[in-house]
Amino acid sequence: MKQEINIAIDFMGGDDNASFVLHGLRLTYEKYPESRFQLFGDEDLIRSKIKNFPDLQNISDIIHCETFVRMDEKPSLSIKRGRGTSSIWKAIDSVKNGKSDIIISAGNTGALMAMSTLILKTMSEIQRPAIAAIWPTINGETIVLDVGATIGSNTKQLVDFSILGASMAQSIFDLDQPRVSLLNIGEEEMKGLDEIKKAHDILKSGSYFFNYQGFVEGNLIGKGVSDVIVTDGFTGNVALKTAEGTAAQISTYFKDAIDRSLTAKLGYLFAKSAFQTLKDKMNPSRLNGGVFLGLNGIVIKSHGKTDPTGFSSAIDLGIDMHKSSLILKIQKNVNELNKELNFD
Amino acid sequence: MKQEINIAIDFMGGDDNASFVLHGLRLTYEKYPESRFQLFGDEDLIRSKIKNFPDLQNISDIIHCETFVRMDEKPSLSIKRGRGTSSIWKAIDSVKNGKSDIIISAGNTGALMAMSTLILKTMSEIQRPAIAAIWPTINGETIVLDVGATIGSNTKQLVDFSILGASMAQSIFDLDQPRVSLLNIGEEEMKGLDEIKKAHDILKSGSYFFNYQGFVEGNLIGKGVSDVIVTDGFTGNVALKTAEGTAAQISTYFKDAIDRSLTAKLGYLFAKSAFQTLKDKMNPSRLNGGVFLGLNGIVIKSHGKTDPTGFSSAIDLGIDMHKSSLILKIQKNVNELNKELNFD
Repeated sequence: MKQEINIAIDFMGGDDNASFVLHGLRLTYEKYPESRFQLFGDEDLIRSKIKNFPDLQNISDIIHCETFVRMDEKPSLSIKRGRGTSSIWKAIDSVKNGKSDIIISAGNTGALMAMSTLILKTMSEIQRPAIAAIWPTINGETIVLDVGATIGSNTKQLVDFSILGASMAQSIFDLDQPRVSLLNIGEEEMKGLDEIKKAHDILKSGSYFFNYQGFVEGNLIGKGVSDVIVTDGFTGNVALKTAEGTAAQISTYFKDAIDRSLTAKLGYLFAKSAFQTLKDKMNPSRLNGGVFLGLNGIVIKSHGKTDPTGFSSAIDLGIDMHKSSLILKIQKNVNELNKELNFD
Repeated sequence: MKQEINIAIDFMGGDDNASFVLHGLRLTYEKYPESRFQLFGDEDLIRSKIKNFPDLQNISDIIHCETFVRMDEKPSLSIKRGRGTSSIWKAIDSVKNGKSDIIISAGNTGALMAMSTLILKTMSEIQRPAIAAIWPTINGETIVLDVGATIGSNTKQLVDFSILGASMAQSIFDLDQPRVSLLNIGEEEMKGLDEIKKAHDILKSGSYFFNYQGFVEGNLIGKGVSDVIVTDGFTGNVALKTAEGTAAQISTYFKDAIDRSLTAKLGYLFAKSAFQTLKDKMNPSRLNGGVFLGLNGIVIKSHGKTDPTGFSSAIDLGIDMHKSSLILKIQKNVNELNKELNFD
């Protein structure tokens, strides 16, 4: 029997009454029978829903929480209202107390980040936590960070993000020397912001556990030229959202093109299985799940609007990272590098 | 007979020996017979090429230039080497002297911007020029600026860009009250950089010639929710390149899906005309051509890698703007607004 993995679930987060949660947990349980779930939320609500999932009932604890954080609540207010009582807070706290190995929420991102930072604390030598996204590329996947935790990053933070992202790439892509790049607006060294240029100078001057490759521009993210792409949270968030928007835009064009004529519809039927592959590749499910890096614990943010597969894949990612001892790996990498690095 | 429009062409810019230039000019001439071209570059080269275009020979002047700017040259070096002698410099100078109405180059963007700013000067009350891109959306087109001239913009510059972009939208989309939005990472007012928040406060507090709509996130650009989307040049460049990269990535998926089976190929044949429409929509030709705004003259940058249609559409855009007296319109809008605005 494999060692149990304890997973804290914020049951109250997400749109559409989080109807995807239990179906998602079942998918994860089928894949990882060693899963055990701690469900944080309104006890009556959880009991009324879980009774249709007898397999999950046996492996889940329900922890009643008096409050929950609204999706649109400001983080400062959510902490005032939900400190010690809300489902997000208590779920994170169970990681802090060692009762859970990872925590997943489809709730309010800002509140999840603020509470995670308060409870779990930032790792020593790391200035600010980051949100890492897994970006599908034509060759596989790339980790892009930060996609929204920081606004405007200094040089030290960009170097921190390189270490965090490269450690994650080692874990989930199983790579020895991940390739790391900095997002910039020109490949020439002359361009870009001062803090990015300085981070570039630091990263290229040393020999680290990752392979620093220099600058990349936004058009290369989807080409899979690097395993990790580092940027500040403002730029990363705009890039991620713009890519999502462009994919949605092209889907609309595609549907319009198919609907235009009978022959086009007929052609679509012939090519349907091929287009299913295309649709799967454009499916953001695997991208679902921002990972909070730089904290003393594994925190995963699932999209608020997701489906069982998306929610389950976010959990699976957390399980992957737990099994590969990501937190220990990061702390070791951070400690080793910070001895060598010098930020003035 | 319509009034002649004089168009200065940097003959030496662009990849692939600028083979698209004369074919592009012919397309523009067919559409606008009032076009007259000033061709700046190596006289022998131009003569050897234009002899195959007798229709263009009659309406073109050739202005010999001793030097030209390389595509990868640093702007500072290009000014040192090419001041007064290079094809870009002399072409811009012809706008300054009133001999040309607009200037188009497919050459080095940084050099074109640096020389344009030196020669034509920034408009009074405008701090920095911007590069505006025309972004295809599911409803039509949106102007996005700045996409690369500035790195990190202050509040005044973001408000300037709103005025510049809205004036351009009035001209090329023929709108009375264009909708203007600021690109940000959350729709809530709490998020974003300080300078963006301050620009937001200024824009929403007054009543201007455009309709300020607040913040938009990256995923909404392609939905056509606004006529003008304003951001700093770093973020705008990353967003534009990321959108291009995502479109290219999906094209690759699409080709792979079609190539996977015989039935898929057959289906593709049936639906071919529909997919042609799709391909046309994803064609960046119409997006080709960044417009430099905020200078005392119309300067258009064409992509270095373009084709005759793309080059011609960049010129056509310049003709549109000239015919609608864009520069006068901008200066009027800028003067009126700057009386009302107060930047501390």
